[in-house]
Amino acid sequence: MSDGVADRLKWDERGLITTVVQDASTQQVLMVAWTNAEALNLTVQTGEAHFWSRSRSELWHKGATSGHVMRVREVRVDCDGDTLLLLVDPAGPACHTGQTSCFFRSIHEVQIN
Amino acid sequence: MSDGVADRLKWDERGLITTVVQDASTQQVLMVAWTNAEALNLTVQTGEAHFWSRSRSELWHKGATSGHVMRVREVRVDCDGDTLLLLVDPAGPACHTGQTSCFFRSIHEVQIN
Repeated sequence: MSDGVADRLKWDERGLITTVVQDASTQQVLMVAWTNAEALNLTVQTGEAHFWSRSRSELWHKGATSGHVMRVREVRVDCDGDTLLLLVDPAGPACHTGQTSCFFRSIHEVQIN
Repeated sequence: MSDGVADRLKWDERGLITTVVQDASTQQVLMVAWTNAEALNLTVQTGEAHFWSRSRSELWHKGATSGHVMRVREVRVDCDGDTLLLLVDPAGPACHTGQTSCFFRSIHEVQIN
């Protein structure tokens, strides 16, 4: 990662940044999680996605337990610097339910005639 | 939208839910914004993406000024109900910079040999 990039990101009042995770091959959006500075550093250093778990208040190496790690191909940041996009190669389902993506429920769908 | 869906979403302490916007055709992740209950209702009723602008503290009909509205094909919710994914057909660039996606900056990229 370029020097000083983390300094230019807009971390929220908890020191976190919203992070979208997308499959680099299928382009499916897999999940949304939160990253703090330490997690971002670990993601870049190890090449595997790390997040901050708000529910457990701890660093979260995705897949450390399940084996479903995510190899990170690229980290992007949005125009105003307050959201990250990780492009990853997942070793298994992203969702704790076993679904490929956490976004498996549709709540509204437009019928195309 | 099914009755009562909005009641089952996990709105944050500000009454907002993180919303990822993805191009339904190209699968490119375009932007991340915030939705409140009124914005979600308007999105479903009008078929065009509405958000809550945190910087302006107002309802935001995406494209109302620029003409770059987003027709919404589908609204998905993640496993724990605290993030939405909109699949859209955008009428123009999503980003205020004129870029197709707000995620046009890479801050880390793994070289594939």
